[in-house]
Amino acid sequence: MNAEIITIGDEILIGQIVDTNSAWMATELNAIGVKIAQITSISDNPEQLVEALDNARKRANIVLMTGGLGPTKDDRTKKVLTSYFHSQLVQNAETLQIVTDIFQKRGLEVTPLNIDQALVPECCTVLPNRAGTAPGMWFEDEGVIFVSMPGVPYEMKHLMTGQVLPRLRALNSAGRIVHRTIQTIGIPESFLAKELESWEDALPEHIHLAYLPSPGLIRLRLSAFGEDEKQLEAEVNSQIEKLNRIIPDAIYGYGEISISEVIGELLKDKKSMVSTAESCTGGMIAHQITLIPGSSEWFKGSVVAYSNEVKQKVLGVDEQMLIRHGAVSEEVVRQMAEGVRKVIGTEYGVATSGVAGPSGGTPEKPVGLVWIAVAGPEKTIAEAFRFSSDRERNITRAALTALDKLRLMLKE
Amino acid sequence: MNAEIITIGDEILIGQIVDTNSAWMATELNAIGVKIAQITSISDNPEQLVEALDNARKRANIVLMTGGLGPTKDDRTKKVLTSYFHSQLVQNAETLQIVTDIFQKRGLEVTPLNIDQALVPECCTVLPNRAGTAPGMWFEDEGVIFVSMPGVPYEMKHLMTGQVLPRLRALNSAGRIVHRTIQTIGIPESFLAKELESWEDALPEHIHLAYLPSPGLIRLRLSAFGEDEKQLEAEVNSQIEKLNRIIPDAIYGYGEISISEVIGELLKDKKSMVSTAESCTGGMIAHQITLIPGSSEWFKGSVVAYSNEVKQKVLGVDEQMLIRHGAVSEEVVRQMAEGVRKVIGTEYGVATSGVAGPSGGTPEKPVGLVWIAVAGPEKTIAEAFRFSSDRERNITRAALTALDKLRLMLKE
Repeated sequence: MNAEIITIGDEILIGQIVDTNSAWMATELNAIGVKIAQITSISDNPEQLVEALDNARKRANIVLMTGGLGPTKDDRTKKVLTSYFHSQLVQNAETLQIVTDIFQKRGLEVTPLNIDQALVPECCTVLPNRAGTAPGMWFEDEGVIFVSMPGVPYEMKHLMTGQVLPRLRALNSAGRIVHRTIQTIGIPESFLAKELESWEDALPEHIHLAYLPSPGLIRLRLSAFGEDEKQLEAEVNSQIEKLNRIIPDAIYGYGEISISEVIGELLKDKKSMVSTAESCTGGMIAHQITLIPGSSEWFKGSVVAYSNEVKQKVLGVDEQMLIRHGAVSEEVVRQMAEGVRKVIGTEYGVATSGVAGPSGGTPEKPVGLVWIAVAGPEKTIAEAFRFSSDRERNITRAALTALDKLRLMLKE
Repeated sequence: MNAEIITIGDEILIGQIVDTNSAWMATELNAIGVKIAQITSISDNPEQLVEALDNARKRANIVLMTGGLGPTKDDRTKKVLTSYFHSQLVQNAETLQIVTDIFQKRGLEVTPLNIDQALVPECCTVLPNRAGTAPGMWFEDEGVIFVSMPGVPYEMKHLMTGQVLPRLRALNSAGRIVHRTIQTIGIPESFLAKELESWEDALPEHIHLAYLPSPGLIRLRLSAFGEDEKQLEAEVNSQIEKLNRIIPDAIYGYGEISISEVIGELLKDKKSMVSTAESCTGGMIAHQITLIPGSSEWFKGSVVAYSNEVKQKVLGVDEQMLIRHGAVSEEVVRQMAEGVRKVIGTEYGVATSGVAGPSGGTPEKPVGLVWIAVAGPEKTIAEAFRFSSDRERNITRAALTALDKLRLMLKE
C-alpha cells in the first residue's frame, strides 16, 4: 500500500504556515506500513485539485487530502470532490446533529452556512468529526481510496487517529507491524544516540528504531515487521527490557502518555498533592499539569511569581536572599519550592527561577540558566540547568525538566 | 510569473523532518511578486523527478528544486538533470576551487567523491555556493527556468538570497503582490464570514481574502496582485479601513502579533500591570503572557487556584459564596479577579472559573461553561461563555477570551 498526501489551500503556498500536518501524517502512515510516494501542496483552485487527484491515483492507492473544508467561500474541496466522483450533495443527519450540538452548546444560532457543513457527496462514507463542524469523507473509486479531512491540525489528527488509521490498518491485513513507543526525558538526542548505539546496531533486521524528538523530550519508537503478531510483541518487549537496563531513569513511560500523567499516578499512589511556584516558566508547569483530566485530585494550585515582590509577599522568600543572591539562585528557588508547599498546603512543591531570554542575561547568569527545586516531605533538592537562547524552548524545557525532577523524587 | 517548488529526498516523505524550506522560499518569492502554484515533495527516484519536472513546466515558468545534490549514492538529481536537458557533465573550475578551499581550510584531503561535486551539466549556468560543496544550477529550457539547489536550509537560503532571488527580481520587473494580515478574535468563523459577506463580494478581482482560523482566533489575509506596489498598498489599506468599520472590536492587530503583545502595549501606555487568578485555565493565561519577552514590565504574577481551598486562602474568596453559588459562578469569578488584584498588587486582575471537561459537567453547569471576569481600577465585569467538549481547546479558548476581555477594558 502506498499513499499520497495533497494539502489544499493558499496558506502553505504563500509561506504563511509551515506544513506540519504532512510530517505528522507521514510518520503515522509509515508506522502502519503505508509508504508515502508524494506530498503535493496546491491552492484551492478546482482545476488544480482535479489534476492533482488524477496524477496521484496513477501512483498511489490511497490519496489523503487536507484542507478546503471550511464554511467560507474559499473552501471548495467538497464541491470539487462531488463532481469528481459524479455524485451529488446530500444532507448527512449525523453531521447536522454534531454541528447543531456544537452551536447549541455555545448558545449560538445555527446559520445556513453551518447547515451547509452537513452536506456531503452521496457516494462517500462520512467520517464523523467530533472536533469540528466539517466531517471527514472516505471515497473508494476504481480500487483507489480517497480521504478528505479538514486542514486544522487538531481536527485532522482526531480523524486520522480515530478513523482513518484504524480503517487503513484493517485493510493492510497481510503482514503485521507491532509498534511500541518509549518516552524518554533528560538525555539530549546526540547523547542518547551514543548511549544506545551498540544496542541499536544489534537490533535484528526486522525491528526498526526511530527517534522522535520534541523540545525537552525524545520518544523512541520500535517497529517490528513480520507475520506472527505474538512473536513480534515478545521480541519488542525483550528489546525494551534491554533498553530499560541502559537508560532506566530516562524512561518515564510507554505509549502516548505525558509526564504529567505519570506524575499524577505517582501522586495518587502516595495520596499526596503538588503545587508549583513559577518564575521563568510563567505558569507553563501548571498548564502542563492541568491539561490532564482529573488533575484536581493531585494538583491544588500554583503561584506564578514573576516579580520579586510576589516571591516575597505571597511565597515568603526572604528579602535578604533576593538582594544577596538574586532571584535566579539556588537559595531563592529552594525557598520558593518550600514556600509554595506551605502557602498552598501540599506535600510537594516545585519551583523554577531562570533567565528565559532573549535578553536579561549576564556573564554569571546567562540566558538559558534555570534553577529548579523540588520540596518534599523529607527534603528539598535544587539543580541548575543551561538551556538554549530561545525563550519559548527554554520555558518548555524548564517546565518538563521540573516535572521530571518531581517524578524522580516521587520514585525514590 | 509563477513558480513551483520540488523538494527531493526521503526525509520529508517519511516524516523525519518538517519541510520548512518551502515556507521560507514561498515567503521570499511572494515578496518579489512570484506566485507559487504548487509544492511537491518526492523521493530521490529518477523517474519521479522527471515526471515532476514534466508536470511542473506545464503550470509554471519557474521550477525550483532543492535536495539530492550530496556526494553520496542516493543523491541523483544532477545526473537526472543532465540527461533531462540532453547535456553532459563537465568540470566547473570555480566550483572545484571552492571545494578544494573548503577541504584545505579544514585540513582534510580532497577525495574523488568531492571532486565529482564540481561536475555540472554543460548547459547550465553555475550558481557558486560558498556555503557548501554542491553548486546551484540554473537552466533555461523552452521559456521555463529550472533551478537546482542543495536541501540544507543554510545553503539553500544562501543561494536564494545571493543569486536566485536577485536574478528573478531582475526578470520580473512587472507584477507585484501586497499582503496584509488582520488578526481577529471573538467572532466564530461562520459568523465572521456572514458579517463580512457583502464586503468580501465587493472586493475587486485582484484582491483576494483568506480565512486562517486557529482555536479562539481567526487571521484574515488580504492579498492584492498588480503592477504598482504603492497603489496596491493604498487599495489594501482602504479595504482594511472598511473592514475596521464592520468589525471594529474584533480586530486586535495587524501582521504577526499576538493578543498578549497587544495587551502589553496597552498596559505600558497606561503604566499599569496585570495579574491573573486562574481556575479552569490552570496557568494558560499566565503562560500566554510570559511567552512575550519583557512581559515582566506589565505582568506581576498569577495565582492558579485549582482547589476551592486556594480560592479562599490565597485569593480571599468568601466561603459562603463558594457554598451558595459553586466555584463556577459569576459571584466567585468576580471575587477571584478582585482578590488577585489586591493579593498581587496590580491595577488589573483577570479571572477564570469553568468546567474544562471532559467530565465534571452537570445540567446547570455543563462541560464548556466558563465564567470570565476582569477587575480594573473603575469596575469589574463578568461574562459566561459556552465552549466545546474538548478540554485542551476549552482551556485555550478560555485563556484567549479572557485576554480579549482585558483588551476591551483597556481600550475603553
